[in-house]
Amino acid sequence: MLTPTILEVTGERFVAVYRLSGSPAEARERAAAICIEQTIEFPPDLVPDDDIRRHIFGRIEDLIQVGPQTVDARISYALETAGLELPQLLNVLFGNSSLLPGIRLIDVEFPHALPELLPGPQFGVDRLRGLFDAPHRPLLATALKPMGLSARALSEMAGQLARGGIDIIKDDHGLANQPFASYTDRVRSCATAIGQANEETGNRAVYMPSLNARFDLLEERAEVAIEAGAGALLLLPGITGFDHLRHVAETAGLPIMAHPAFLGSYVTPTTEGIDHGLLLGLMMRLVGADICIFPHFGGRFAFSPETCAWIARRCREPIDGIRPAWPGVAGGMTLGDVPRMVTFYGSDVVLLIGGNLHRGGNLAASAQEFRRLAESYA
Amino acid sequence: MLTPTILEVTGERFVAVYRLSGSPAEARERAAAICIEQTIEFPPDLVPDDDIRRHIFGRIEDLIQVGPQTVDARISYALETAGLELPQLLNVLFGNSSLLPGIRLIDVEFPHALPELLPGPQFGVDRLRGLFDAPHRPLLATALKPMGLSARALSEMAGQLARGGIDIIKDDHGLANQPFASYTDRVRSCATAIGQANEETGNRAVYMPSLNARFDLLEERAEVAIEAGAGALLLLPGITGFDHLRHVAETAGLPIMAHPAFLGSYVTPTTEGIDHGLLLGLMMRLVGADICIFPHFGGRFAFSPETCAWIARRCREPIDGIRPAWPGVAGGMTLGDVPRMVTFYGSDVVLLIGGNLHRGGNLAASAQEFRRLAESYA
Repeated sequence: MLTPTILEVTGERFVAVYRLSGSPAEARERAAAICIEQTIEFPPDLVPDDDIRRHIFGRIEDLIQVGPQTVDARISYALETAGLELPQLLNVLFGNSSLLPGIRLIDVEFPHALPELLPGPQFGVDRLRGLFDAPHRPLLATALKPMGLSARALSEMAGQLARGGIDIIKDDHGLANQPFASYTDRVRSCATAIGQANEETGNRAVYMPSLNARFDLLEERAEVAIEAGAGALLLLPGITGFDHLRHVAETAGLPIMAHPAFLGSYVTPTTEGIDHGLLLGLMMRLVGADICIFPHFGGRFAFSPETCAWIARRCREPIDGIRPAWPGVAGGMTLGDVPRMVTFYGSDVVLLIGGNLHRGGNLAASAQEFRRLAESYA
Repeated sequence: MLTPTILEVTGERFVAVYRLSGSPAEARERAAAICIEQTIEFPPDLVPDDDIRRHIFGRIEDLIQVGPQTVDARISYALETAGLELPQLLNVLFGNSSLLPGIRLIDVEFPHALPELLPGPQFGVDRLRGLFDAPHRPLLATALKPMGLSARALSEMAGQLARGGIDIIKDDHGLANQPFASYTDRVRSCATAIGQANEETGNRAVYMPSLNARFDLLEERAEVAIEAGAGALLLLPGITGFDHLRHVAETAGLPIMAHPAFLGSYVTPTTEGIDHGLLLGLMMRLVGADICIFPHFGGRFAFSPETCAWIARRCREPIDGIRPAWPGVAGGMTLGDVPRMVTFYGSDVVLLIGGNLHRGGNLAASAQEFRRLAESYA
């Protein structure tokens, strides 16, 4: 038995909601195990009647039966367990429990805005509408690709897309620092080409390079982007980490788009992993994404309409002190899909059409048509 | 249609093996889709007969039917697609495909050692045996916990464990920078306590702090650990990123233990995600982990004996130019489990017993008994 510990804690707690598979009795047992697993990871019988037991142990706040073999457990943790750092917050929410069968993290609840941990979007819906002088219409995004093109070819493409009226011209998420179009060359060429197009047209297109890089080069790459005049940044938190996204959102002064690469394994399971809306919507947003990219239904990804609506809702639902984020829908979309997508998501949406803008052979014309379609919602 | 592109490529390719659900015809179609999804993500019919088509497209090398509704697809990618950076390599292997149903990444094959991308362990089995003067026996590890104890209480515990003969005394993976035992206080106190114990006993115990921190503090925290005299580092690549692990392994000059926190959602599914042995064994090792922690069967995690044996095999199997890593087995183990664990894994194993060393009330005596059991395999 340990010596009893006395702690100074604020008493503030946050909540994780886990969907547990099993009978009510099994769920109760599993919830009790999570309270230990995610905090002290120590035999609870060896902890005396002290402040560790009272405050550090996770606490079952509710067990709600939602199906014959499904129970939602609301478990609270002392805010201090996360030490005001996002990486440890993620660890408390789902570190070891991710390895256990029959536990899906479906929601999180925080007592109030926590700027150090979860700053939320720096731009969000209103500030991006202002930046793009687009008070009502959907925002338009596209991706520079395919991988293998030179920096020059990509920058020519970028110029055409900017002239055509696309708002956000991003690197394809697979563009990193390949020899065909090294990061610095590409970023400088594309930012310049888009800047020139804006001067000619009066448009406000931004270039959004992808910051998927070696850990030790991430800061340098962000600086290269900012110096070159990039107007936004694409991040892949499934690879470079959620706290990298938080850091860039807080320091770069540019709008951030979050891409779900390498995160699919959290959402594809049904009884494990993390809820689609929580991971790809709310968590991205809380951490700092202004735009949360996810696959629209009906494309090559198997997300359902309900799933897509749910992610969009979690991007935009009112949260005190946290700006709404834009759902960004992508994945094999065509110009013909635009009216249905706007009907489905409303106009607070970023529509991303990539390769299919190249159909028909006239990229600038496709971009203009994309813009015309969007402006019909102004 | 794009203008044809001419590329300089080495012709070197690496292979990802995906286990696909579906009939042979469905699997062939899905494999062809992966070749595009993971590389150009662009309508292939718009790419002319050029070097992008010849070299950048993924290439189906083999389709092997392994069950009535299961096909393994070996798909190769040009080494250049990864741009010699690990984050983009991960993106090529499983970025978007992680979001698709019925695709599990089960293996990777590289043409030769790729130190920039995949350096492998800097210490591995032989150098750690030398460091601990343990030519034959299993290595012993334990964790400082529970969360909530002060830096002083944790360091007293650390001293007792070092005196008792434990090799690796690590932070529990949930210790970060909580107010009860802030990172710097804890690291300095524990490193000092273990250093003093080593002077008294002649043991070579090391303190292993956990580097789960804010992105912008990761380098500083590593420096604090090194300056304080920590002898090894614990990393959580599921939270701070695989490339952070690679970077620390290459720069810190200390042995690295990789913890699977937040990575469980990759392995728990059966038809999606990433194979246990690949993710928790081979990938951790290739990236630089000297010790790969995973849950031993029979504890509170539901890994099977076959899964555990497979992870251990992928840690240690011969690979030209890459040192073997230690499987590190943990998860509610007791002293009574030691003989069976050594029989199962052999003696090239790190045995991690945490909270259960506290049973019986005499931590130093439990540690001594743990060491005595291990030395019976010398």
